[in-house]
Amino acid sequence: MTGADLLVVGSGLIGTSLALAVAADLEVVLLDSDSDRLAAAVARGAGRAWQPGDTATTVVACVPPASTAQVLADLQGRGAGLTYTHVSSVQAAVSAKVERVCPDPSSVCGGHPLAGRETAGPSAALADLFAGRPWLVCPGPSTGQAHLDRVVALARAAGAEPAVLAPPAHDRAVALTSHLPQVVASALAAQLTAAGPDTAACSGPGLVDTTRLAGSPAGMWADVLALNADAVAPLLDAVARELDRLGAALRGGDEPVLRAAVHDLLARGAQGRALVPVKRGQHDEQFVPVAVSVSDVPGQFAGLLVTASEAGLNVEDVRVDHVPGRPRGVIELVVRAEARSATEQALRAGGWDVQDR
Amino acid sequence: MTGADLLVVGSGLIGTSLALAVAADLEVVLLDSDSDRLAAAVARGAGRAWQPGDTATTVVACVPPASTAQVLADLQGRGAGLTYTHVSSVQAAVSAKVERVCPDPSSVCGGHPLAGRETAGPSAALADLFAGRPWLVCPGPSTGQAHLDRVVALARAAGAEPAVLAPPAHDRAVALTSHLPQVVASALAAQLTAAGPDTAACSGPGLVDTTRLAGSPAGMWADVLALNADAVAPLLDAVARELDRLGAALRGGDEPVLRAAVHDLLARGAQGRALVPVKRGQHDEQFVPVAVSVSDVPGQFAGLLVTASEAGLNVEDVRVDHVPGRPRGVIELVVRAEARSATEQALRAGGWDVQDR
Repeated sequence: MTGADLLVVGSGLIGTSLALAVAADLEVVLLDSDSDRLAAAVARGAGRAWQPGDTATTVVACVPPASTAQVLADLQGRGAGLTYTHVSSVQAAVSAKVERVCPDPSSVCGGHPLAGRETAGPSAALADLFAGRPWLVCPGPSTGQAHLDRVVALARAAGAEPAVLAPPAHDRAVALTSHLPQVVASALAAQLTAAGPDTAACSGPGLVDTTRLAGSPAGMWADVLALNADAVAPLLDAVARELDRLGAALRGGDEPVLRAAVHDLLARGAQGRALVPVKRGQHDEQFVPVAVSVSDVPGQFAGLLVTASEAGLNVEDVRVDHVPGRPRGVIELVVRAEARSATEQALRAGGWDVQDR
Repeated sequence: MTGADLLVVGSGLIGTSLALAVAADLEVVLLDSDSDRLAAAVARGAGRAWQPGDTATTVVACVPPASTAQVLADLQGRGAGLTYTHVSSVQAAVSAKVERVCPDPSSVCGGHPLAGRETAGPSAALADLFAGRPWLVCPGPSTGQAHLDRVVALARAAGAEPAVLAPPAHDRAVALTSHLPQVVASALAAQLTAAGPDTAACSGPGLVDTTRLAGSPAGMWADVLALNADAVAPLLDAVARELDRLGAALRGGDEPVLRAAVHDLLARGAQGRALVPVKRGQHDEQFVPVAVSVSDVPGQFAGLLVTASEAGLNVEDVRVDHVPGRPRGVIELVVRAEARSATEQALRAGGWDVQDR
């Protein structure tokens, strides 16, 4: 088949980011029912707009999970490409519908890049949205190997790290790592409504982190949870039983029992936490913070980075711990572990107040 | 009484940070049963070591909640000071014991600075640990006004924002904003142990944030939860019932009911989340991010900040979105909302790839 390399259907955040990620190496054609969104993606340099008769080696549907299978069936019916994939955050339900509605399910292979941003649409798209992120590739029962291989290659081309997982295994995994945390964060944050702003103001950074997901859009989550209800429901039970067990220990009035219950829960929690990759695909240990106390964060930001840069140091990340609008604070420069001592020395030599480890 | 202004008993993270925060203005004496810890705090410039006969206007016990009341009673017995306070994360139980064991409960007023770090000990202490943070001041039934006033003044001297709250109200508030999030984070993270590292690796930043607290020390939390069991238990029930309700809706097989349940929970969660001060004591709206795509984060950090600085812009915070060790990424400069357009213009004029909003 002649034609483009990639047809991206749906120019939202994910579709446009994918197109931007591969646009330098692949010929990309874009299709979207919303002409403004399509024009915005084209203007970002994501590719050219689809014209009648255009075909592509790989077709990727970047549309909501509930419409994904039907969109793929329509595209296949038109002969839009050779291999078909999608980016749905739920796989088993989509895969089952693909088997029912697609003219040729063998050329369809599901996919799910674990990436996103808090903002949506083509203007929020990033060429490196997928860099270093997992991209779960989920072949259905009929998927042919050549089509699976093409989807793996697409994930790599976008800079992601593909991993092959059957749709039900995918859904169980994201139920645990994505859908359950969303529900738990919402259930936790919902308790604050009864208490009001004065109580919520009595909070530290722990509450901020633990409830961050509670700002997510309800409509999208209704779709996702409806399609993955079977995998999520038992996990909700499991967390509820943990809370019930500890609640009973707190009520029982037997302090050794209470302490044992707290130790058991926190030990298992710490074990689980240790399994979570803290920075995209990696654990923390390679990179360490060097903390510098400054009397004026906004004013001294640039000078601090210049000192580091002039000393030939690579600063991988920066964390700031201060109250915006107030001058004093701590700036942490994150560097490779092996560069820690050199960084501390160079900053001290430059007159900066580096904190002891 | 002659003597020092402040006696800090316990040179851990909180005690040493408090001493550092006020050392420029107050004469501080330090006491710790661990001579190495005491020496480390003295070496940090937190104050001088206590000598027999030393007294202080205000005495603050920075020791674990379970031993706080007895430590205060012993100090009062020795006539160590005029006003006695502490920094316990649980107040009602400490206050009740103070009434029982202290020779003069009228000179004792509880306190709880809402600040901390993930690392402990005097070497992790920061002079500005309390800057802009709430410091809950919790008078007991016998506390005299002059003593309450001194504790409020101490909190202000440390840079914190004091708020007076009765011990039971304090304990209900932190049960919701601190103790409940800890238990929920641990219960969530504990589910990952059954699934193993492959599943946990299928995760995005949501899981990282939601489980961060699960790394907390179990021993400290056993103390805290034992002392605040009555306030925490009903909150665990409330969250468990939320999870049960949604679980039932997911199992029920009635999609409109399921969607209504998800919308209800996420709407209440978003309402609760909106009450959480996102940065110490303030909400997000005053500060906005300006995102810049860079081809080399470590290499271009300094140049970007210099461009902003030369344009006279104040950068309040920096967030980095990239994979450490890989060059490309996005650097977000956080600026005051009213400076957003000027920042975007200045950076674009400097040749930087500023992202559309």
